[in-house]
Amino acid sequence: MSERSAKPRKYHLHRNRSAGYLPGEEEPPPSSAMLPRRSSLLKRALLSLPVLLLLAFYAFVSFSPPSSPTTSVSDYAVTTGAGNGNGNVPSLSLLKVFMYDLPEKFNYDVIKHHALVRSSPVPDDISSLKYPGHQHMAEWYLYSDLFSAYVPRPGSPVVRVSDPAEADVFYVPVFSSLSLIVNQARPANSDTPPAYSDEEMQEELASWLKEQELWKRNNGRDHVVIAQDPNALYKIIDRVRNAVLLVSDFGRLKSDQASLVKDIILPYSHRINTYAGNVGVEKRKTLLFFMGNRYRKEGGKIRDLLFQLLENEKDVIIKHGAQSRESRRAATQGMHTSKFCLNPAGDTPSACRLFDAIVSMCIPVIVSDSIELPFEDVIDYSKISIFVDTTSALKPGYLVSLLRGVSKEKILEYQKEIKKVKRYFEYGNPNGTVNEIWRQVSQKLPLIRLMINRDKRVVKGETDEPNCSCICSNQTVLISPL
Amino acid sequence: MSERSAKPRKYHLHRNRSAGYLPGEEEPPPSSAMLPRRSSLLKRALLSLPVLLLLAFYAFVSFSPPSSPTTSVSDYAVTTGAGNGNGNVPSLSLLKVFMYDLPEKFNYDVIKHHALVRSSPVPDDISSLKYPGHQHMAEWYLYSDLFSAYVPRPGSPVVRVSDPAEADVFYVPVFSSLSLIVNQARPANSDTPPAYSDEEMQEELASWLKEQELWKRNNGRDHVVIAQDPNALYKIIDRVRNAVLLVSDFGRLKSDQASLVKDIILPYSHRINTYAGNVGVEKRKTLLFFMGNRYRKEGGKIRDLLFQLLENEKDVIIKHGAQSRESRRAATQGMHTSKFCLNPAGDTPSACRLFDAIVSMCIPVIVSDSIELPFEDVIDYSKISIFVDTTSALKPGYLVSLLRGVSKEKILEYQKEIKKVKRYFEYGNPNGTVNEIWRQVSQKLPLIRLMINRDKRVVKGETDEPNCSCICSNQTVLISPL
Repeated sequence: MSERSAKPRKYHLHRNRSAGYLPGEEEPPPSSAMLPRRSSLLKRALLSLPVLLLLAFYAFVSFSPPSSPTTSVSDYAVTTGAGNGNGNVPSLSLLKVFMYDLPEKFNYDVIKHHALVRSSPVPDDISSLKYPGHQHMAEWYLYSDLFSAYVPRPGSPVVRVSDPAEADVFYVPVFSSLSLIVNQARPANSDTPPAYSDEEMQEELASWLKEQELWKRNNGRDHVVIAQDPNALYKIIDRVRNAVLLVSDFGRLKSDQASLVKDIILPYSHRINTYAGNVGVEKRKTLLFFMGNRYRKEGGKIRDLLFQLLENEKDVIIKHGAQSRESRRAATQGMHTSKFCLNPAGDTPSACRLFDAIVSMCIPVIVSDSIELPFEDVIDYSKISIFVDTTSALKPGYLVSLLRGVSKEKILEYQKEIKKVKRYFEYGNPNGTVNEIWRQVSQKLPLIRLMINRDKRVVKGETDEPNCSCICSNQTVLISPL
Repeated sequence: MSERSAKPRKYHLHRNRSAGYLPGEEEPPPSSAMLPRRSSLLKRALLSLPVLLLLAFYAFVSFSPPSSPTTSVSDYAVTTGAGNGNGNVPSLSLLKVFMYDLPEKFNYDVIKHHALVRSSPVPDDISSLKYPGHQHMAEWYLYSDLFSAYVPRPGSPVVRVSDPAEADVFYVPVFSSLSLIVNQARPANSDTPPAYSDEEMQEELASWLKEQELWKRNNGRDHVVIAQDPNALYKIIDRVRNAVLLVSDFGRLKSDQASLVKDIILPYSHRINTYAGNVGVEKRKTLLFFMGNRYRKEGGKIRDLLFQLLENEKDVIIKHGAQSRESRRAATQGMHTSKFCLNPAGDTPSACRLFDAIVSMCIPVIVSDSIELPFEDVIDYSKISIFVDTTSALKPGYLVSLLRGVSKEKILEYQKEIKKVKRYFEYGNPNGTVNEIWRQVSQKLPLIRLMINRDKRVVKGETDEPNCSCICSNQTVLISPL
């Protein structure tokens, strides 16, 4: 089924292409300047010496005391255990990732078809195509980050390895979220069948993975698969569920497919500009701002009810608006000049608006009872946002009176906390989202290794029931919103 | 309910007592020499200077690169996240444990009553009593390890802190396993009611914890509670289940009380001597050895069936024997001179015999379908033992013919692997079980912090169903035993 040999190829310089964006309806995200640029062989040679010296210095200071041979030193929390075969060798403990050199149909072909549907020019060498901006573009940032990361970089918790035997985990750089929106721009009344099929891409990916020796070895448990859009890879999610999944929420995933224990919640890439100003309320005259789709399915039905409650409040701006460049400008303006930003559930519990609010330093008011949030081990969201349960939020007058009661001091406190953690939501920040995602992957290693070792010896149960290990919240306490 | 004030007291020098063992039916475990000795103020003063210098050196080499301010460097995998309030301060990342100075009824009184029942002398100052040796004595080793660990020790992943604000986790040093066996030595026909009650101790502990501000703050999630005997704390386990539990197995725990994700499986302390010789089969003439109780409840019923199958095989020694000094001598002799050691389930899936076999370099043959094993992220048990599912093990001739078919080379390979990991099962080894337990606790920190932060903002669900995050084994593959 694979277009290429099953054995993944090594690093190819010609694929170290520059990042960028197609002209069309998508604007470059604010962080585009941070993406890697094409680098020449010369540049690489010049860069490598200081990096190697730095590496040597790190290695020197990083040796464990002799009495603790199986653990190792790092600025990141990764240990190399006996289970990994590296028992007594102290080593730099960066997360070692083997990134598959996937057949192009799983990534560059997706960009090509996205361009074709939008009648954008497609060069002969599709590897020079630029990835378009959209809210689920972590797949591009992670791919770019790893692409030439064969030497450790100061501040980065990850290094790419070309030898699978050295790898802690295996990254599958499929553009699964972009694939989902390729055909969105097709005219509704088109007579011709679409040239691209997301479902076919998914099936082919599942078949391709199934053939990989590295995948088969541990049933995919040490693989990392990105499916950031809540619908990405929906057809094959059951076949890749053993992997660490990088997702936006669990709204469309069953509890045996994904969980906080096994998987990682990613932030959406924010689509409006970061607020460059400081903390303060002077320039934020609006109490509460919301702009987005009034009508949504499932948990998002609350939106219409909130519109009815709030649209006549004098210091509240609540507007229906679809995705467009014009909407983004209005949303930027609104979020940069409001104290609070409303974040109701969408079709699924998460929504990109939350991350737009955070980078705007507009305190999020989250009305989404089942939301899961990125990086919650290092971010206490109760310090940067206000949670209101759906039932309370729908009581007439409740929300506005709650928010009007928040003192200026408390608002400044929230803003200061937002400022501290903002970088976690900036994909383009050199110590931002991408680093944190890899750090989160590192933290999964002990459990990944435990499950791999355990799978080697578990005896088949008498029933077909899965054998699960869980951590539970009793939810016996209703936290007061302030 | 508490005998002392709710606020835990600080370190008291008079409690830094020497470790040891009561005379009586329990023999000192092999590692007794490793336990801490009483140290004088002078010794402490002399010791502190070099330790502080070492600490200063560690701090120097441990600073993170400036671009990764929230993570820190260590020879152990612990990071200090923003959620911990230490956002931008690089620090030594040892696991910081606040150990409660519990009322004596939860530890020293237990030793006293254990001695009284056995008519051993009890000094006026019960804090000079020695902890008796038995198979669930991790509670003593952990307590001793932390007792004066206020400065980092080379090779140790843990440091004791006296300020709760600095702590990563809170350790409850209750002697819950010893408490369970206090009355075991009482004559069956005694007329007087017992002076000690394990159940009362448990109830009082639950009440005491419930009053602690530190416990209430996060509903116990950042607490570590030891209950190594499968019956320890059985009455109150539901009330302490949010904590990280240190247990032997999950045989008597429900899935919402304990799991691989939240808790830590401890090895039993081995009760026979470590084999001092090298790998080899020359001195191991017996094929398979087992000595222990023939009749057990539940999963242990398999034992009697195995006796019937194996007792007439010529190169197999299978003997019924209860706990006694004489039995231990015979078991030592048998395990040190056999190639394989049988480990059937007991009343619960785990049994101390497995760890006796490992330190004897006698390859464990594990017949216990639901066993969970300690430190399985760093130990691949399929390399050091043979797993046989119960159904196969009960087929006449299956076990012996399987074991007779293992080549000498393969046996040596198993033995070499056992030698590599033996230290993980030696509580007295300075880089043994105790260090590994603390390292395992460290690895729980990200999930502990995530759950604490998440609990602050989760909205009560519509049902009383707990909200659980799981990792599952599909158990679709029956691993072949060799």
